[in-house]
Amino acid sequence: MFDGGAALRHQMRGMNIKAGRATIPSQFEQRLAQVASAAEHTLDIVLGREPQAGEIARPARLIEAMRHAVLDGGKRIRPMLVVETAALFGISEPHAMHAGVAFELLHCYSLVHDDLPAMDNDDTRRGKPTVHNAFDEATAILAGDALQTLAYEILAREATDRDPLVRASLVQCLARASGIGGMAGGQMLDLEAEGRYTEDKRPPGLMLADVEKLQRMKTGALLGACCQAGAILGRARELEAGAIARYGRALGFAFQLADDLLDAEGDAAEVGKAVGKDAAKNKATLVSALGPIAARRRLGDLVDEAKRALYPFGERAEWLRACADFIAARKS
Amino acid sequence: MFDGGAALRHQMRGMNIKAGRATIPSQFEQRLAQVASAAEHTLDIVLGREPQAGEIARPARLIEAMRHAVLDGGKRIRPMLVVETAALFGISEPHAMHAGVAFELLHCYSLVHDDLPAMDNDDTRRGKPTVHNAFDEATAILAGDALQTLAYEILAREATDRDPLVRASLVQCLARASGIGGMAGGQMLDLEAEGRYTEDKRPPGLMLADVEKLQRMKTGALLGACCQAGAILGRARELEAGAIARYGRALGFAFQLADDLLDAEGDAAEVGKAVGKDAAKNKATLVSALGPIAARRRLGDLVDEAKRALYPFGERAEWLRACADFIAARKS
Repeated sequence: MFDGGAALRHQMRGMNIKAGRATIPSQFEQRLAQVASAAEHTLDIVLGREPQAGEIARPARLIEAMRHAVLDGGKRIRPMLVVETAALFGISEPHAMHAGVAFELLHCYSLVHDDLPAMDNDDTRRGKPTVHNAFDEATAILAGDALQTLAYEILAREATDRDPLVRASLVQCLARASGIGGMAGGQMLDLEAEGRYTEDKRPPGLMLADVEKLQRMKTGALLGACCQAGAILGRARELEAGAIARYGRALGFAFQLADDLLDAEGDAAEVGKAVGKDAAKNKATLVSALGPIAARRRLGDLVDEAKRALYPFGERAEWLRACADFIAARKS
Repeated sequence: MFDGGAALRHQMRGMNIKAGRATIPSQFEQRLAQVASAAEHTLDIVLGREPQAGEIARPARLIEAMRHAVLDGGKRIRPMLVVETAALFGISEPHAMHAGVAFELLHCYSLVHDDLPAMDNDDTRRGKPTVHNAFDEATAILAGDALQTLAYEILAREATDRDPLVRASLVQCLARASGIGGMAGGQMLDLEAEGRYTEDKRPPGLMLADVEKLQRMKTGALLGACCQAGAILGRARELEAGAIARYGRALGFAFQLADDLLDAEGDAAEVGKAVGKDAAKNKATLVSALGPIAARRRLGDLVDEAKRALYPFGERAEWLRACADFIAARKS
C-alpha cells in the first residue's frame, strides 16, 4: 500500500517540531499562506465597494462590515480544501478559487452570526472585535445575511465554471451542507446542548453519539462540502468522489476535535479568541465526552483515516495529506 | 393599442367595491388563493420534519421555527408573480412553483430577520407572534439563515428545471436581488434612515431620490426578480425579458408605496401587524416624502406603467395586470 506519510516525509525538507505536539510540515504552511493570499485577493475583489452588475448600490456601512468579517484574518482552510481537491483532477488554482472563496464567505457569515449576543456572545474573533462589536447588532445580522447571499451569487456566476451543471451542483452542495440539515441545524443543536431550552437550564448531558452528530453538522458538513466542491469542479467519477467524501468526513471531524482541544487547553492570545468557553458553558464537546487523552488518540486515528482515504490519488494528494496533519497540530 | 383593463373588466363578472378604494377584482383574489394554496402545499413539503437527501438531521426546534415563519400566512404574491410570468411562456404552474416557493422562502427569511429586536423589533407578523417572540432570538436568527439557504437549495434542484443553465440563472437572479446590492442593502439604508447611525440620532432627512433607491433595493428588487425568474423559466427572448423587467420594476415600486400607505392609514387588525410605525420612527417612506395625496396619485401612475409594459403579451397577461390592481388596492 502506498505510504503517503513516508512520501511526504521524504519530500519535505524543513519540519517544525513542536514540543509535545505533532509535527507541522513548514512547506504546507507556506503552501497554505500562498493559497490564503490568493483567496484574500479574490475576496477583496468580490467585496469591492462599488456596486457590481445587477446591483443598485452597495451601502458603505454594510460593505465595510462584510469586509471586516472576511478580510485580513482566517487561515483559509476552506479555499485550500476546494483548490487542492480540484487540483487532483487537473483544475487550476485560479479556476477553483471562485468556488473556494464562496465557501469561505459562507463560513465567515456563520462566524458573524454565531458571535452575536443572542448566540455565543463573543467579543473577539481572529484577534479583532467581532462585527457586532465593531459595528452593531443589526449591521452584523445584515452583514452575515449578505455574505451568505454573496456565496451563492459567486457559485452561480459563469466565471466559477463554464458548465452550468457544475455551478448548479456547487450551489446544491453548499446549501445542503450549511442549512437546517447541516451547519445551521448543528448550531441549533449546540445551543440546545447548552441547556438554554430545558426547564432547569442545565445541559441535557448528551451521549457521545449526539455530540458526534452535532459536530458533524456544525463544522464537519461544510468542510466535507469543500472537498466535494473540488470533486464537482473536477467532474470526479463515483469512486473518486467517494474517496474524497471519506477524506472530507474524517477531516471535518478531526478539525472540530482539534478545535475543542484548543478551547480546552489553548492559550487565548495564540488562539485569537476566548478559550475555556466550552467548559464555562458546559458545552457538549468531544473533549468533554471523551476526556482529553482519548480525544487526542481519536484525533490521531481520524488523521490516519483521512490520509488512507486518499490512497487512490497517490502522490498527487500530498497537500491534502499534509492538510490533515496541519489541522490536527494547529495552535490557532 | 390593446386595452388590458377593458378586457379584464369584460372578463370579470364579480367585483368587490370597497368604499373609497380602488376595485379589487374578486376573480383575481380567487386565482391568488388558488396559487397560495398550491404554494402552501409545496412549502409544507420542503419544510418537512424529516431530513431530506444529503441532510444529517433536522433539529425539531429549528424546523418548527421555520414552519412558523413560513406556513399559514402571507398572500404569496411572490410565487404568484413567478407562476404567472412563467405562464406567459407556456410553463405550467407545478413546474414554476418550485422557483416560486424558493422566492417566497427568501422573502420569509427577510421578514424573520427584519422583525428581530436589533432591527425593527416587531412583536406580530401576519397576525401571529414573530419568530423571536414565539421561540427566541437565537432560534429566529438561525431560522432566517436556514430559510435563505433552503431557497438556494431548491433553486439548484433538478426538479426546479431540467436545464442546469436555468437553475444557475435563477440562483444568480435571486442572489443579486437579495444581497448587499438589493434587499439586504436596502434594509441597511432603511436602518440608517432612522438616524440610528448619526451622531444626534435624528433621521438624516432623505431626498426623494434616496427614498426611491432605498425602496427599490429593499422591496422592489425581489419582486422584480420574481418576474425575471418567470422569464428565465420561460427562456424569454431579450425584448420580452425587457418588458417583464419594466413591469416588475413598476410593480415593486407600487407594492412598497401601497405598503407605506397602509402603514400611514391602515388599521392594525386588518393589516395583521402594527401600523403607524413608520411615522413613529420618522422612517423615510415615499408617503412621508410625497405626502399621502401625491403618493396615491403616484401609485395609480405606477399601476398604469406596469400594465402598459405587458402590452406585448396581450390577453395572456390578464392575471399580471390584475395583480398590479390588486397590489395597489390591498388592505393588508
